[in-house]
Amino acid sequence: MTRGDTAPVDLDALLARCTFPAPGTAVTAAVSGGPDSLALLVLAVASGCEVTAVHVDHGLRAGSAREADVVAAAAEALGAAWRAEHVVVAPGPNLEARARAARRAVLPDDACTGHTLDDRAETVLVNLLRGAGTTGLAALRPGTRHPILALRRSETAALCAARGLAPVEDPSNTDARFVRNRVRHEVLPLLAEVAGRDLVPVLARQAGLLADDADLLGTLAAEVDPTDASALDAAPAPLARAAVRAWLRPTADGQPPSAAAVERVRAVAAGDAVATEVPGGWRVRRSRGRLHLDPPSAPS
Amino acid sequence: MTRGDTAPVDLDALLARCTFPAPGTAVTAAVSGGPDSLALLVLAVASGCEVTAVHVDHGLRAGSAREADVVAAAAEALGAAWRAEHVVVAPGPNLEARARAARRAVLPDDACTGHTLDDRAETVLVNLLRGAGTTGLAALRPGTRHPILALRRSETAALCAARGLAPVEDPSNTDARFVRNRVRHEVLPLLAEVAGRDLVPVLARQAGLLADDADLLGTLAAEVDPTDASALDAAPAPLARAAVRAWLRPTADGQPPSAAAVERVRAVAAGDAVATEVPGGWRVRRSRGRLHLDPPSAPS
Repeated sequence: MTRGDTAPVDLDALLARCTFPAPGTAVTAAVSGGPDSLALLVLAVASGCEVTAVHVDHGLRAGSAREADVVAAAAEALGAAWRAEHVVVAPGPNLEARARAARRAVLPDDACTGHTLDDRAETVLVNLLRGAGTTGLAALRPGTRHPILALRRSETAALCAARGLAPVEDPSNTDARFVRNRVRHEVLPLLAEVAGRDLVPVLARQAGLLADDADLLGTLAAEVDPTDASALDAAPAPLARAAVRAWLRPTADGQPPSAAAVERVRAVAAGDAVATEVPGGWRVRRSRGRLHLDPPSAPS
Repeated sequence: MTRGDTAPVDLDALLARCTFPAPGTAVTAAVSGGPDSLALLVLAVASGCEVTAVHVDHGLRAGSAREADVVAAAAEALGAAWRAEHVVVAPGPNLEARARAARRAVLPDDACTGHTLDDRAETVLVNLLRGAGTTGLAALRPGTRHPILALRRSETAALCAARGLAPVEDPSNTDARFVRNRVRHEVLPLLAEVAGRDLVPVLARQAGLLADDADLLGTLAAEVDPTDASALDAAPAPLARAAVRAWLRPTADGQPPSAAAVERVRAVAAGDAVATEVPGGWRVRRSRGRLHLDPPSAPS
């Protein structure tokens, strides 16, 4: 961070590693006011896209309204449009996941975010801790929704400093309640010390390899009909799992189902059980050789 | 460990989770004298196999000769055959890898080892730190070479205690020089604390899922000829990588090549380079649309 105050920043070199759409394209950027998203805003404008910055106030913390002012000021200084959205997220369990869902509801599907290479590496570890399979480990893909995914967090901080932008510190970033924050502040530093090298590029590269594997397996799995119990049971395990994951996607707000839930559905296909619960209160049951996916409200 | 001194041990229940070959089969067990390998010996004998315990003295530490006595005494008490082997491993870099290679040279290919579920979980993390792709992450497969892979280290210690066996403590197990030992004693405990649960079964299950993926990709990759540059370049990335990994296997003592080496070979296939070094001093070069794998001694 302190180095960023003085180090020169080569905007063109940074832009060359970004994946913004063609100049002139309308782009909505989710901007919290932290260093990553402010750097996203700077780079999006510099890419020649028509940028609208959107700040989402979750109303969870004192001070989050002030963050909207930081975003508005930065957008105006950079010549970008902006708007502020307010969502309501009740305190309680799975706060991070519910805040993300509320945020998504007020942002267009193709809104871009300021996730960095550091986020990608952290996501590998977070999903490893959650017990995700290949698809989960491969989360956070390069593309126009994550245009600065190849940049380091140190680079976004340096860019903000070079542009005289003062990012807000998101208190949740230093809140050890969240698994992600403990991964960032405790697990990754320990792993880097044990490995004797910066592990962020290593883990991000693994995510890329696993993403390629998951994509190919997903393509091949499109041939497998998850509602045909015999076909699902006869398919190679990785393809059966991918077919089940794709089938269960509507049940859990787009998040991949746990590996355990996928195995329970395969057990129903194999005839080891007649029905099983899956995430979000949905239920998979077998009847006359077919699997059925019943929503939470349907009678069993 | 202390709990193992008094807890009753159900040998049949443990055996039901093991993957020994059929009773009467001749089995060579690599036994260091530590708790895992002594438990392997107890269970192998109990499985009804014809067991030969082999202790390999690497001559690296004072006291390693005494470990052979522990193994010999345990084998005789259990009614198993035994023999002691001596190998020479010079101190220096990659000591662990060279000790493993020397050990393999004096053991039959199908010798079984006392790797546990804890080892499997640790291997996922060690290979993650090393930058391995899917195949590396999937290392340590269930089967007759790893018959006690489903057991926990706490169970092997309890079994030894219940049988009155006093395992040797391998000093290398508490030597923080080795990445594996730091993963065992520092990384895994931190991850378990962050995740709020025992992570060994979680990581071992991930290894199983990734092993299934790697197996299917390997089967599909058998169709790709790694010596045909155009075919390799045209194949889906995961299959091209698997084909290259299989092709490079002789170059690095059976260890999977690094993801970086695999990508360099793909770059040669794509025409981005004419040749590249691969592990063990081997070299891949392109000539008239074919890729050639030259051993270290061959002239370039």
